[in-house]
Amino acid sequence: MAKWVYEFEEGSAEMRNLLGGKGANLAEMTNLGLPIPQGFTVTTEACTNYYEQGKTVSKEMEDEIFKCLASLEKKQGKSFGDTDNPLLVSVRSGSRASMPGMMDTILNLGLNDVSVEGMAAKSGNPRFAYDSYRRFIQMFSDVVMDVSKQLFEKVLEEIKESKGIHYDYELTAADLQEVIKRYKQIYKDNKNDDFPQDPKVQLMEAIRAVFRSWNNERAIIYRRMNDIPGDWGTAVNVQAMVFGNMGDTSGTGVAFTRNPSNGTNQIYGEYLANAQGEDVVAGIRTPNPITEMAKEWPECYNKFIEITQILEKHYKDMQDMEFTVEDGKLYFLQTRAGKRTASAALQIAVDMVNEGMITDKDAVLRIDAKSLDQLLHPTFDPKALAAGTVIGAALPASPGAAAGKVYFTAATAKAAADAGNRVILVRLETSPEDIEGMHAAEGILTVRGGMTSHAAVVARGMGTACVCGCGDITINEEEKFFKLGGKTYNEGDYISLDGTAGKVYDGDIATIDATIDGNANFSQIMKWADKYRKIKVRTNADAPDEARKALEFGAEGIGLTRTEHMFFEPDRIPRIREMILAPNVEMREKALNALIPFQKGDFKGIYEVMGEFPVTIRFLDPPLHEFVPTDEDAIASLAKDMGMTVQEVKDICNSLHEFNPMMGHRGLRLMVTYPEIAKMQTRAVMEAAIEVKNEKGFNIVPEIMIPLTGEKKEFKFVKDIVVETAELVKKEKNSDIEYLVGTMMEIPRACILADEVAEEAAFFSFGTNDLTQMTFGFSRDDTGKFIDEYYKQQIYESDPFARLDQSGVGFLVQMACEKGRKARPGIKLGICGEHGGDPSSIEFCYNAGLDYVSCSPFRVPIARLAAAQAALHAEEGGKVIHG
Amino acid sequence: MAKWVYEFEEGSAEMRNLLGGKGANLAEMTNLGLPIPQGFTVTTEACTNYYEQGKTVSKEMEDEIFKCLASLEKKQGKSFGDTDNPLLVSVRSGSRASMPGMMDTILNLGLNDVSVEGMAAKSGNPRFAYDSYRRFIQMFSDVVMDVSKQLFEKVLEEIKESKGIHYDYELTAADLQEVIKRYKQIYKDNKNDDFPQDPKVQLMEAIRAVFRSWNNERAIIYRRMNDIPGDWGTAVNVQAMVFGNMGDTSGTGVAFTRNPSNGTNQIYGEYLANAQGEDVVAGIRTPNPITEMAKEWPECYNKFIEITQILEKHYKDMQDMEFTVEDGKLYFLQTRAGKRTASAALQIAVDMVNEGMITDKDAVLRIDAKSLDQLLHPTFDPKALAAGTVIGAALPASPGAAAGKVYFTAATAKAAADAGNRVILVRLETSPEDIEGMHAAEGILTVRGGMTSHAAVVARGMGTACVCGCGDITINEEEKFFKLGGKTYNEGDYISLDGTAGKVYDGDIATIDATIDGNANFSQIMKWADKYRKIKVRTNADAPDEARKALEFGAEGIGLTRTEHMFFEPDRIPRIREMILAPNVEMREKALNALIPFQKGDFKGIYEVMGEFPVTIRFLDPPLHEFVPTDEDAIASLAKDMGMTVQEVKDICNSLHEFNPMMGHRGLRLMVTYPEIAKMQTRAVMEAAIEVKNEKGFNIVPEIMIPLTGEKKEFKFVKDIVVETAELVKKEKNSDIEYLVGTMMEIPRACILADEVAEEAAFFSFGTNDLTQMTFGFSRDDTGKFIDEYYKQQIYESDPFARLDQSGVGFLVQMACEKGRKARPGIKLGICGEHGGDPSSIEFCYNAGLDYVSCSPFRVPIARLAAAQAALHAEEGGKVIHG
Repeated sequence: MAKWVYEFEEGSAEMRNLLGGKGANLAEMTNLGLPIPQGFTVTTEACTNYYEQGKTVSKEMEDEIFKCLASLEKKQGKSFGDTDNPLLVSVRSGSRASMPGMMDTILNLGLNDVSVEGMAAKSGNPRFAYDSYRRFIQMFSDVVMDVSKQLFEKVLEEIKESKGIHYDYELTAADLQEVIKRYKQIYKDNKNDDFPQDPKVQLMEAIRAVFRSWNNERAIIYRRMNDIPGDWGTAVNVQAMVFGNMGDTSGTGVAFTRNPSNGTNQIYGEYLANAQGEDVVAGIRTPNPITEMAKEWPECYNKFIEITQILEKHYKDMQDMEFTVEDGKLYFLQTRAGKRTASAALQIAVDMVNEGMITDKDAVLRIDAKSLDQLLHPTFDPKALAAGTVIGAALPASPGAAAGKVYFTAATAKAAADAGNRVILVRLETSPEDIEGMHAAEGILTVRGGMTSHAAVVARGMGTACVCGCGDITINEEEKFFKLGGKTYNEGDYISLDGTAGKVYDGDIATIDATIDGNANFSQIMKWADKYRKIKVRTNADAPDEARKALEFGAEGIGLTRTEHMFFEPDRIPRIREMILAPNVEMREKALNALIPFQKGDFKGIYEVMGEFPVTIRFLDPPLHEFVPTDEDAIASLAKDMGMTVQEVKDICNSLHEFNPMMGHRGLRLMVTYPEIAKMQTRAVMEAAIEVKNEKGFNIVPEIMIPLTGEKKEFKFVKDIVVETAELVKKEKNSDIEYLVGTMMEIPRACILADEVAEEAAFFSFGTNDLTQMTFGFSRDDTGKFIDEYYKQQIYESDPFARLDQSGVGFLVQMACEKGRKARPGIKLGICGEHGGDPSSIEFCYNAGLDYVSCSPFRVPIARLAAAQAALHAEEGGKVIHG
Repeated sequence: MAKWVYEFEEGSAEMRNLLGGKGANLAEMTNLGLPIPQGFTVTTEACTNYYEQGKTVSKEMEDEIFKCLASLEKKQGKSFGDTDNPLLVSVRSGSRASMPGMMDTILNLGLNDVSVEGMAAKSGNPRFAYDSYRRFIQMFSDVVMDVSKQLFEKVLEEIKESKGIHYDYELTAADLQEVIKRYKQIYKDNKNDDFPQDPKVQLMEAIRAVFRSWNNERAIIYRRMNDIPGDWGTAVNVQAMVFGNMGDTSGTGVAFTRNPSNGTNQIYGEYLANAQGEDVVAGIRTPNPITEMAKEWPECYNKFIEITQILEKHYKDMQDMEFTVEDGKLYFLQTRAGKRTASAALQIAVDMVNEGMITDKDAVLRIDAKSLDQLLHPTFDPKALAAGTVIGAALPASPGAAAGKVYFTAATAKAAADAGNRVILVRLETSPEDIEGMHAAEGILTVRGGMTSHAAVVARGMGTACVCGCGDITINEEEKFFKLGGKTYNEGDYISLDGTAGKVYDGDIATIDATIDGNANFSQIMKWADKYRKIKVRTNADAPDEARKALEFGAEGIGLTRTEHMFFEPDRIPRIREMILAPNVEMREKALNALIPFQKGDFKGIYEVMGEFPVTIRFLDPPLHEFVPTDEDAIASLAKDMGMTVQEVKDICNSLHEFNPMMGHRGLRLMVTYPEIAKMQTRAVMEAAIEVKNEKGFNIVPEIMIPLTGEKKEFKFVKDIVVETAELVKKEKNSDIEYLVGTMMEIPRACILADEVAEEAAFFSFGTNDLTQMTFGFSRDDTGKFIDEYYKQQIYESDPFARLDQSGVGFLVQMACEKGRKARPGIKLGICGEHGGDPSSIEFCYNAGLDYVSCSPFRVPIARLAAAQAALHAEEGGKVIHG
């Protein structure tokens, strides 16, 4: 028989999964002998059971709850609903992972028309009793019974107005009795029933409400953002109330053992005398700094400091605590590892290692790898942000905060930036012609396009904040304005972008610069991380600048250079277009040959930066229609260049139309039909590598990567062209340079037949963006129409494009690794999809036995840390599944 | 050490894989003691080795060839290149599977300037010797050395003209010497070398040419059409020449032991006196019926008949034989199972069972299942077809032959058909509004669209010939003409379509009706097939008529009813459009509810036809944009109906645009966002089933199929809606009807996680069209741009949409079956993709343990036969891999 409820003394910190964080720590503190109001925890399994039973609490569970309640009554010497000395309790959620503010809390439960009088008599403070009751009615009605809070606020305002007073605390006991009466009427009007008087009914309703709150919308969103599974459930903590609002010798507060903003080793917090927790939050009175307590209640303060130190030493981590002083007696209501900024996390971890409290491994494991983003990109000043107005939300395409004046063309954006303005480039969608404007901008906002759109990919490479696919915008690029959030923005108006959260703000919000330069704590943690990390971290970079940035961040090679991005520059795109329009092989080769010097130059630049680090160059991937002009002028000009009629050019461009371009004529399919492309790119790579090798003496081994393989024979066909050309170049240049020819793994069939593919391919690099699309059968650009409903219905708990779907896509990756290694022992395995920068996906890649992950430059530090954590997790838990 | 060459007496019929069909049968006939010119066979493995060694013949292999050549010289008492009595040989290809005319043949090899004189002297017939030599030079130059045949023809014409003669046989020995001289000059001009005089060089070049011919373009195409793997290779048969052109007591001919057109048990064939094989083919003289031989050479004829009977009895199959009479002596050059029409195949199989020659199992195995298509659809009259001109080739979207006058709109097509015309409907692409015109047409031709386009799917359902995606057409629908093959066709002009081969012909080619009605042989074979068949055959049918047709063909249920096809009818499409434009759930439900009577009526019609056979109804699958109007009038009218502005309607329609609609908002994704759709369809299905059950007393168990599942939770979400609605309907109707809710398996992820999906799904039906698209990562509609190159380069040997890709897609199917059965023992497994009607795919399905295959009505007989063959193969070879 399952046990659904634990009294605090039955639990411990180790039982976090069952009791939730709050429950486990209350148990632990109880066992440490600290002053904790007693109570019990309904388990997370009970929550899961509640959902499994069609949202009902079983008789058995209810019996257990009432048994623990009876035990609590005995310990407290009070009875639930008692007319003289009633037991009151708080009912609070608490899941395995901390989800602050996401779920529900009910205080003062147990009050009714009778027990409120007992409380008034016992405390000798009728005002306190009635105030507690009216708070309870409002909270219970709102949180448990779904009666709008506004209705109660309105009544309270009316009564205060009729009495001519301003503050709640000016209300007399009699006033509060009037409030109670009218509150109960609101309840009755809305629920067609009297406010429940039976405390046991109140308790069970409250517990059910906490269970329900696990699946409220904000909790679901929070879980998705923090990778918390929906089947964990929440525990419910039922705890005897202590009162901070019993007069001047009472109070309540929150504190951190160290400063959560910067990590300084100093108690940090605040408290309010004569108040309950909600008053601190409500901000009606300004709380006092925690150190004030030393003067006001010195004995209490010393005890408080002593306990905070006990807790930090016990948990070996910075603690975030809630406490209440009831008539001079100190109670701790909660302790947990404190949330902190990335800077503080680094400071605290380094300090604690120096203090001998934790090891360097602990320090590495302690940092949330994702949080490093804060250090790598500008962020908003929290105070300025608090005053900001969100006008739109869309895809968080490239992290960081940015504010500036809006411009609608690359040219005007560049001019404005050159004139010293901070600029936000706003476009329907970006195209390669916009590169200069994108470079000049602080941030980029597009109306169309997904996480792998041109804007998104380029912005991530540059480390520029970018919000994509904001479909709510109505834009008129020609007349230079856009509408969003009910407001019209003209050229030069200010907006701010949060590329990390995918939000658009009105106006110019102050930002704080990235803080990685010279950050000694960051360097120290990275050093420790590299000590334990076992797989390599490479970067996705298409240009020498990006490569240089990534090297600064610790990249150990390039896992993906997208050659097509080089084609878009103004001096090259005409050649590509000529190639596409060429009526025969000879003219196609001629156009392509004209591109060799450009491509070779690009590759040389990258080789010069990367030295002997490996560089993987991917051959042309997108369908050709992405390169052809769409506006009439460009078409006319192209026709003239080609000696063709405008109609002929249009006909060819139209013939490139595809029903599903993502699954069309692209990747190595282009090289099967136009082997000239592979020849040209091979020549450029090989000549560049040989020249840099000769000039600089680097031992360069080019890695040529063929995209979109689905079949061994098709890969071999292209590989044969590459090898033939490479050998020709070697002969011409009298070079003995070595090189590798491998493939992207992004088509399910290639993963299924990876043993065959590995017979020909020297390496696999998993392109998990496309692999995810094919495996799920949905295109990333089209999921917008339904994915929110999938989150809402909890069909998906996280974005499979951000966090690798381990059971589906991961199965294919795993299988491909196994088959690949079997067919070609020592085959090089890597990942170059977006997932290469996601910590949970990196852990998967480590466990699958990949040799490296590759991610955008600004994700390199995150990947280094996450890879170290993966290795340490495996060491701890024996999770290693590869050989 | 491998053995690359076998003398005829070393082989046998069982060695077909190694020696090819021709070589194995020459060996077998040798061992039967029949009169065979001796020789040897270079094996198929030698051919494979030739390709593996980069198209070179190893020294070892050459040595073996020359050893066997020496042995042959000894047997024949002649020497290669001898000046007195030279040995001449033929060099002919012969692969495992018969590929008539696909590869190369060289006759008279061994002649040179010297041996031709020996031959002249020995035969006493110089004209014969020179004629043989000039034929050899031409054939060797053309076939082996790639010198165009035309050059030789031209010279021959010139000489005949200068001599004032008409026929080759009028050329004198002296003339032929002149021809030889000029032929050799052509060779020298083109190859910069003298015509090879060394017979061993000639032989090795000829053998290499035969190896090469395995990969000529027509052989590759033939293999793709006949599912012959490219790695089989061809054998090469080197055989002593015998001469049918040595005078009036010589001749050559071909014969069949039974009539290959209708199967009559009677010798059938023809011969030519004083001729070599090529003369028979060339058609310069009309050959005589084989029975004439009885009069001309009675002794020879009796011997001939005796041997044909020996061969048929020996092989237990109708034989196709080549023979030569050299100076009164009969030689057999080849025997093989004769190609035959489907009618003949049935007749022969049934006769042979009756004659006690073969068993009913043999009879079932003997029929090429695909060939039944000939009986089920009209075909062209072969004689009329021979005179036809192909003007275009495109996708063979729906089999059968059709001829008629072209019309460009559904309305004009219908009117013309009503007026008694045979009509071909020609459209850019068809849409649901064209249904009536499609029904009226004999055949349908479209410019755009693939094998799963609207035109293709509808045509297959109706059994109407259809050629799709003929991109070479320039069409002007408004002005009612199209251009193809350099000619313009106006309304009323005749064209003919071959939907089986995907060809378009000029003019009105006579057709022969389908011959299945009352075909006793067909019924007999089907009866035998059903006796051995172990899996069910269902049909894909969207309407009662189609269901009825399929029942006649022996379908045992419906595996796929596509409900969306019902939405397109003129009285329904407005409701669907209202549903799409509805601003809220209420209005959406209202629009949907208006559709219930229609859907219910459709389902009732199907249930009434199908009785107690199972019927699987698939819920709405395509993206909504397929239902919205595109022309201005329809948009305006819709806007009026909806009380919206034209712009509002356009905005909504535009918002439905998707980048990759195949991977967009469709299938059950629609039902997650609009649960109302699933509710409406469930209600229609359940009400229809209950009503027909009550009215007719059938025990109906509806099978509701949810398309596009990729995740258990998403399936469960939709299933819960279905179950809730179904239970509601049952309650309303006071019915205890049972029903199943299952899923299409068409997303790779669903196959990978099939165990999870099976926890919720009562059945799986593999939608192998979409599954193939996702697994290969290419969209069927977009492969046209590159797939031909893939065939040409032999990357793919067959169309994965026609023949299931067993190693890739098949892996997923297999895995899903295993995981599904493990999680839900007894889960119902079927296939409803196009592959359900393809024999090799059916065999795969049988071996994977599927319970049924489902295909279009006109493929049902093929599937029944193929399923029986699969069961018999498994019985023979123990191929069964399921439990």
